Amino acid sequence: MAFPGTELPIVQAPMAGSQRHRLAAAVCAAGGLGSLPGAMFDAAGLRAELQALAAQVRGAPYNVNFFAHQPPAADAAAEARWRARLAPYFAEHGIDPATVPAGAGRQPFSAAIAEVLEEFRPAVVSFHFGLPAPGLLARVKALGAQVWSSATTVAEGVWLQRHGAEAVIAQGLEAGGHRGHFLSDDLALQSGTMALLPQLVDAVSVPVVAAGGIADARGVRAALALGAAAVQVGTAYLCCDEAETGALHRAALRDPAAPTVLTRLFTGRPARGIVNRLIREVGAMSEDAPAFPTATAALAPLRARAEAQGLADFTPLWSGQNRSGCGEPSAARLTRALAGA
Amino acid sequence: MAFPGTELPIVQAPMAGSQRHRLAAAVCAAGGLGSLPGAMFDAAGLRAELQALAAQVRGAPYNVNFFAHQPPAADAAAEARWRARLAPYFAEHGIDPATVPAGAGRQPFSAAIAEVLEEFRPAVVSFHFGLPAPGLLARVKALGAQVWSSATTVAEGVWLQRHGAEAVIAQGLEAGGHRGHFLSDDLALQSGTMALLPQLVDAVSVPVVAAGGIADARGVRAALALGAAAVQVGTAYLCCDEAETGALHRAALRDPAAPTVLTRLFTGRPARGIVNRLIREVGAMSEDAPAFPTATAALAPLRARAEAQGLADFTPLWSGQNRSGCGEPSAARLTRALAGA
Repeated sequence: MAFPGTELPIVQAPMAGSQRHRLAAAVCAAGGLGSLPGAMFDAAGLRAELQALAAQVRGAPYNVNFFAHQPPAADAAAEARWRARLAPYFAEHGIDPATVPAGAGRQPFSAAIAEVLEEFRPAVVSFHFGLPAPGLLARVKALGAQVWSSATTVAEGVWLQRHGAEAVIAQGLEAGGHRGHFLSDDLALQSGTMALLPQLVDAVSVPVVAAGGIADARGVRAALALGAAAVQVGTAYLCCDEAETGALHRAALRDPAAPTVLTRLFTGRPARGIVNRLIREVGAMSEDAPAFPTATAALAPLRARAEAQGLADFTPLWSGQNRSGCGEPSAARLTRALAGA
Repeated sequence: MAFPGTELPIVQAPMAGSQRHRLAAAVCAAGGLGSLPGAMFDAAGLRAELQALAAQVRGAPYNVNFFAHQPPAADAAAEARWRARLAPYFAEHGIDPATVPAGAGRQPFSAAIAEVLEEFRPAVVSFHFGLPAPGLLARVKALGAQVWSSATTVAEGVWLQRHGAEAVIAQGLEAGGHRGHFLSDDLALQSGTMALLPQLVDAVSVPVVAAGGIADARGVRAALALGAAAVQVGTAYLCCDEAETGALHRAALRDPAAPTVLTRLFTGRPARGIVNRLIREVGAMSEDAPAFPTATAALAPLRARAEAQGLADFTPLWSGQNRSGCGEPSAARLTRALAGA
C-alpha cells in the first residue's frame, strides 16, 4: 500500500472547471487517489457529486479539494477598470457590459460545505491558497480526513505543517493552473519542482506530494527519488475521456510546443495556462484584472461568445509545462502507466 | 565508466567569473568532468589556464566551455541610455561616467581560441548560446573533442543535434547564470528541469545532460530516472574552496531563502541571480541595459566601488534555485557525494 492509503502513489490533481466525479472515480478504481474539485460547487452541487463519487468508489479513499482564500472586499473602481480594459472586446462581440453581472467565480471553503463533508467523510481533504480558519479546519479534522495543502516555497510548507497539514503538496513552477502561494505574492520566491521538492522534504516531517512537470513514469520515479511520498498529476489527466475539458482546451493541449505563462487575467490570481489572445493583447500579469476570484465574471460572456465561434480567445487554457502525457484517453490506464504498473 | 568517459556522471558547470582551472582539476581528480569557462580569457590567458589544468588532470577528460553569441553592432544610443539610467549611481559613488570605457565583457569563440585548443585537445568542448559557425565548429570536431551545447527548449535540442552537437545540456529554468537560449528570446518557452528533461530525451538521440535545480545525490538520481546520461551542477560548486567566488557572492549564496530572478542587467542577456539593489531599483529585465555582452562595462566601476565598501549592490550574484548543496567546501567530496559514491 502506498501513501496515502492507496495501491499506487498517484494523486489526480483536482481541476476546477475541467472535471467532476467521473474522472476522480476512474482514478480511484485504478488504484490512485482521485480528487474532486469542490470550489466549483455550492453545497447542493457538492452533495450530488459526492453521492455519485462515493457510490462508484465503494469505500476506496478519495480527495476533495477546496480553496482557502479570503474573498476580497467589493472594489467598484477595480471592477470598472477591468470592464474598461475589456470594452473593445465587449464591443467586438456586441455585448452591453452593463448587462454583465459581477460576482465571485469561486467560493472559499465554508461551514455549509463542511456540513456536506460530514455526510461523506472523505479520506483526504486538500486545500489551495493556505488553510481555512482554525475552527473550520478542526471540523475537517474531526471527520477523520487527512488535511493536505499546497506549498510553493519551503516557508509555506513549514507554515502548513505547523498549522495542522498532514501532508504538503510541493507545487513546482511547472504546474498548470493556479499557483497555491499564500504567504507571499512574490513569484520570484517560487521555484521548479527539481529545486523545491527536496528542500521541502528536508524542511518538514509530514509526507510531501510532488506536483509540477510530471507526466509519465519517469517523472514519478524522479519525484520519489527526490523524496516525495506520492505524486500529483494534473495536465495529463485533462485529455482523458473522463475529464470534462472543453474541445478548444483539448486542442490547445495537443500542441506540445505552445508556450504557457503565469497569468492573472482569468481569475485575478497567477495561474499557468497556454498563451491565447487575451493574454497576448492585455498582458499575462496585467494589474487591470481585479482581485481573485472576481476577474472571472466580466470575462464569462466574452468566453461564451468566442467559444461559440470556435475561438479560445477568452478561455483559460490551464496547462502545466509538460504536456507529453496528453496522449492517453483512459484515466485508469494513465494512472497505472504513471505508477509503472 | 559513466558518460562522458569519466568514472562518475557528474559535470561541474563552467562558471565564468567564479572559477578557473583549480575547481575543474579538483572535479576531474574526483572522477567527474571538470569544466573551464573559456569565455573569460583571451588566447594567452586560456593557454595558461589549460597548461595548468592539463598538468593537474594528467590525461583525465575535461571540458572547456565557450560562448557562441553574435557580438552586437555598436549602439551608441543604447549605451547612452544605459549610462543615463546608471547616472544616479555614478554620482553616488563619485564616478565620472565619461571615464568609464565601453566594450564587450565576453568574447565569442574564435579562430584564435580554436588554435589554442589544438595544443590541448580537450575531451569535451561545450558551448552556450548555440554553436559557432560551421567552419569553426569543424575545427573543434577535428580535434577529436565531443561538442556539447545547451538547450532550453525541445526545439533547441533538436536544432543542436542536427547541427552537430554530440550531447545536449537540458538547461531547466532552475539553473543559475545565463540562460542558453538561442532560437527564441521568449522566456515563456522555457520550462523547469522536470518538464524539459524527459521531453528532450524523447526528442533527440544524443545523450542529454541535465542542468537546473540539482544539488545533491537525490537530484542526480532523479535526473537519471528522467533519462539524463549525466548531470551538470553549478551552484553547489560555487561555495567550494577551489572556486574563486567572491566573499559577497558566497555570503548571498548561504541564505537559502533569498529569491533569485532572471535579470538582463549585468550583461544584457537573461541570467538567474540573487536579487540585489540594482535589480530591485532598475528592474530585473529592464530594457535600459544594452545588448549582451555590452551591459557589463558601465557597471564595472560601480561594482568595484561598492564591493570595496562590502556591498553587493552591483555584483552579479549568480545562483540557481536550489542552494542546498552550498555547504560542502571540498569539490572532490561534493563530486563524490553528488554521485552517491
